Amino acid sequence: MYASSGNTQVRAGIVVTGTELLSGLITDRNGPWLAQRLGELGVEVAHLLCVGDRPEDLAAALRFLGDQRIDLVVTSGGLGPTADDVTAEVVAGFAGVRLELDAAVEQQIASALARFRRGSSFDSEALLAANRKQAMVPRGAQTLNPVGTAPGLVLAIENGPTVIVLPGPPRELQAMWPMAVATPAARAVLDHARPYESAQLRLFGLPESQIAVTLREVSQTLDLTPMEITTCVRHAELVIDIRHRPGAEATRRALIEAIRMQHTHQVFSTDGTSLDDQLAQLLRGRRIGLAESCTGGLLAARLTARPGASDYVAGGVVAYSNTAKTELLGVPAELIEQHGAVSPEVARAMADGARHRVGANVGVGITGVAGPGGGTDAKPVGYVCICVTTSDGAHLASDPVLPGDRAEIRDRSVTVAMHLVRRVLQGVEVDTPSR
Amino acid sequence: MYASSGNTQVRAGIVVTGTELLSGLITDRNGPWLAQRLGELGVEVAHLLCVGDRPEDLAAALRFLGDQRIDLVVTSGGLGPTADDVTAEVVAGFAGVRLELDAAVEQQIASALARFRRGSSFDSEALLAANRKQAMVPRGAQTLNPVGTAPGLVLAIENGPTVIVLPGPPRELQAMWPMAVATPAARAVLDHARPYESAQLRLFGLPESQIAVTLREVSQTLDLTPMEITTCVRHAELVIDIRHRPGAEATRRALIEAIRMQHTHQVFSTDGTSLDDQLAQLLRGRRIGLAESCTGGLLAARLTARPGASDYVAGGVVAYSNTAKTELLGVPAELIEQHGAVSPEVARAMADGARHRVGANVGVGITGVAGPGGGTDAKPVGYVCICVTTSDGAHLASDPVLPGDRAEIRDRSVTVAMHLVRRVLQGVEVDTPSR
Repeated sequence: MYASSGNTQVRAGIVVTGTELLSGLITDRNGPWLAQRLGELGVEVAHLLCVGDRPEDLAAALRFLGDQRIDLVVTSGGLGPTADDVTAEVVAGFAGVRLELDAAVEQQIASALARFRRGSSFDSEALLAANRKQAMVPRGAQTLNPVGTAPGLVLAIENGPTVIVLPGPPRELQAMWPMAVATPAARAVLDHARPYESAQLRLFGLPESQIAVTLREVSQTLDLTPMEITTCVRHAELVIDIRHRPGAEATRRALIEAIRMQHTHQVFSTDGTSLDDQLAQLLRGRRIGLAESCTGGLLAARLTARPGASDYVAGGVVAYSNTAKTELLGVPAELIEQHGAVSPEVARAMADGARHRVGANVGVGITGVAGPGGGTDAKPVGYVCICVTTSDGAHLASDPVLPGDRAEIRDRSVTVAMHLVRRVLQGVEVDTPSR
Repeated sequence: MYASSGNTQVRAGIVVTGTELLSGLITDRNGPWLAQRLGELGVEVAHLLCVGDRPEDLAAALRFLGDQRIDLVVTSGGLGPTADDVTAEVVAGFAGVRLELDAAVEQQIASALARFRRGSSFDSEALLAANRKQAMVPRGAQTLNPVGTAPGLVLAIENGPTVIVLPGPPRELQAMWPMAVATPAARAVLDHARPYESAQLRLFGLPESQIAVTLREVSQTLDLTPMEITTCVRHAELVIDIRHRPGAEATRRALIEAIRMQHTHQVFSTDGTSLDDQLAQLLRGRRIGLAESCTGGLLAARLTARPGASDYVAGGVVAYSNTAKTELLGVPAELIEQHGAVSPEVARAMADGARHRVGANVGVGITGVAGPGGGTDAKPVGYVCICVTTSDGAHLASDPVLPGDRAEIRDRSVTVAMHLVRRVLQGVEVDTPSR
C-alpha cells in the first residue's frame, strides 16, 4: 500500500460495472454513494469509472487504477447470476490469483435462495445452478456475507491496491459497506486516511460565475491554498463545498464569513443543512397544505420523501384543471376568469384554499406554464406564480420566469416555493397584515 | 483513427469532470445521456470516467483512453469560469498543441454575458475577466458556439482519437451535441459507425435471476452469439436490452417470442415503449384522478412529468391525514375506523373519491406504510393497498408487501399502481360488475 510511506493521502478509485450504464439505460447510483462514504473516511476519490460487462474492459479499468498510485479500489456490480457477471474472475486475474469454489459461500447462497423463493413457483434447481458461479471467489479474498444472494469480497493485492468487490443493487451494496470497511484488509488502508474537515454553504439566487468573482476577491486578502473549494448547482441552488486538512479551521471560518457578508440574502445554510432539513425543522408543530398545478405533485412528493413528514404535511391537491381548482380548493371561478389560471391572484387563492381544506396553518399555491406548449407573450413558458400564506395572515409571493425545460422549470418551481416557505417561517421579509 | 482500418467497430470513451461528482455531491446526468446518443449512432461506449478537477487526473483519464483503441473521446465539464475548470488546457496538453486566445470566441462570450446579465447588479467587468479564460482554445480545434457562456470544442488528434469537449450543465451540453456531431472531425469518425439494431423488452413481476434461467434455456435451441443481451432492473421493472448488427433480425424476433411465451403475464412491452408511454396512450380521451397517501404526490408528479399530461390528468389529492381523506376525498370516517387508513377498503374509497371529486373516469387510490416507522405485525412496513376504479364500474386492486427502504417502497408503489391502471384500461383480468 502506497500511502503508508510518508504522509501522502489515501487515494481510491471506484469501478462500477454494467453494460446498461454505458447504454444510458440507467443512471449509476452506486458511484456517488461510495464517493460520499469514502470522502467521509478521509479518502480522496481520484477516479470513478463505469465499464461494461466485457471482461477486457473491466480488466483495463483495474490496470489503469493500478497505475494511478491508488490504494483502494471499490467495485460494484457484476456479481450476479448471469453470464455477463464477471467481476470476481477479472479481479482474480488482476491480482494474479486463482478463482476457487468457496463451499461455505455456496451454502449461504443456497440458503438465501431458499429463503427468497419460498412458496414461489420458480424452478429453484435451475436458480441454484445459475447462482453457483457466485460462489467462485479469488484465492485469499475475504468474503462478505450476501445481503441479497451475491457475496462481497475484499482482497489485498501484494504490491498493489486493496480491492473491495460489492454487488450492484444499491440496497445490497449499501448494506454490505460497513462489513467491507471493517475487514482487516480494508482497515489496513483506511487507518492511514486522515479525515477532511469540511463545510458546505448553500446559496439561492446567485449565479455560479458570481461566486467565482467573490472567491477571487477573497483570495486577495485570505490565503485559500489550504482549502479545496468546489462549487456546483443542484436543484437551482449553489452549493459550495469547502474541504481542508485539520489545522485550517480559522481560514475556513473567515472564508465562510466573507461569503456570507458578500451575499447576505443568498446564503441560507452554512451548517450543512439542506433546504429540506430546514423546512422539516421549521414545520415542526405546524401543518402545511399544498396546492399544485404545473408542478403536479412534485412539491408534495419532495416534502413527503422524508420520514416523519406525516407530522406536518396535512395534505395537498394537484389541481391541473380549473374544475379541480374550484372544486378541490375553492378558488372562485370568476378569479380564474378575470386573471387567468396562471396568475398571482390564483396562486394566492390556491394557497389559501389548500390551507383551509386540509386544516393547515401554512398553505402553498403554485400555478405556472411548465411547457413546452402553452406559453404566450404575456405568460411565457417558465412563468410561474407561487404564493405562501399562513393562518396568521402573513404571505409571501414570487412570480419569476424560470429557465430550462419542463423538468427543470418544475424542479425550480418547487425549490422557489420551498424557499418562500422557509422565509415566511423564519419571518424574513414577510408582508404581514400589520405592515 | 483506428476504426477506418477494417470493419472493427467505433469505440468511444466519455470523461465527465467535476470534483463534485467524486464527492458524491451530485449525480452525473451527462454520462448516461451521452452514452445513449452514442449508442444510437452505432458507437460502442467502452468506458465512462468521472474525474476531479485536478489537471493530472483528467490527463491520466485521457491517456488511459488513448491506450484503449478509442476512436472518439467526449468530455463534459470544466469549461466554466472558475480556476478549477481546466479541460481545454488538459486536452491541449493531451493533443500536444498550444492553447490560444480565440478572439471571436472571446467576443461571443462577452455578448452572451451582456445578454444574460442585462439589468442585473453584478459587476460585469469582473465577470468578463472571470470568463475570458473560457476563450482559450487548443490550436486546431473547431469551436462550437456557446449555448450558455462556455464554447465547445472538437479536436482531431493526429494518430489519436477525436476529442469532443462539451460544457457541464446538462442543458448546454444537450443543446450543443447536434453541432458537435456535425463537425467534419466528428463525422470522419462517426461515418464508420454501423448503427446497431436493437430492441427492448420490459417485464413486470419477474426476478432478474429467473430471466437468466430463461435465457440459458433459450440458448440451447437458439444461437444467441450474435446478440448482445443486457438486463437491468429499473423502477421495479426488468428491462432486457437486445442489440445486434444488421442481419440477425430473425434471431432477435425468435428470442423475443421465446421470452414472451415463457413469461406471458410479465412481458408488457416489446416495442420499446415505457409504462409511461403506454399510459399516456391509454389515457387519451380519458381523465384520471389520483388519491395518494404514502406516495405523497409521486404518482401525480410522474404522470404530469410528460408534456400534454393536462389533457388526461384531471387532478389529484395527497391525503396524508385522515381529515384530508375524509374532507378532500369523501372517504367515510367509519370506513377508516373499521378497517384502518391502510386497507384495501380505504384504497378503493380513495380511488372512487378521487374520480368523483375531479370529474374523472379513472381513479387511483394508494395507501400504505412507507416506513421506516409505523409498521405493525399485521401491516408491516412495505404493505401498500392500491386500487384502480373506473366510471364503468371496473376495478382492480393489489395489496403487496413491497421490499426496500422508504424511497423504494414509494417508487414501487407508483409503478404497481401504474401497471394496475394499464391493465384496467387494456381490459386485462379486471373485475367488472358483470362477472
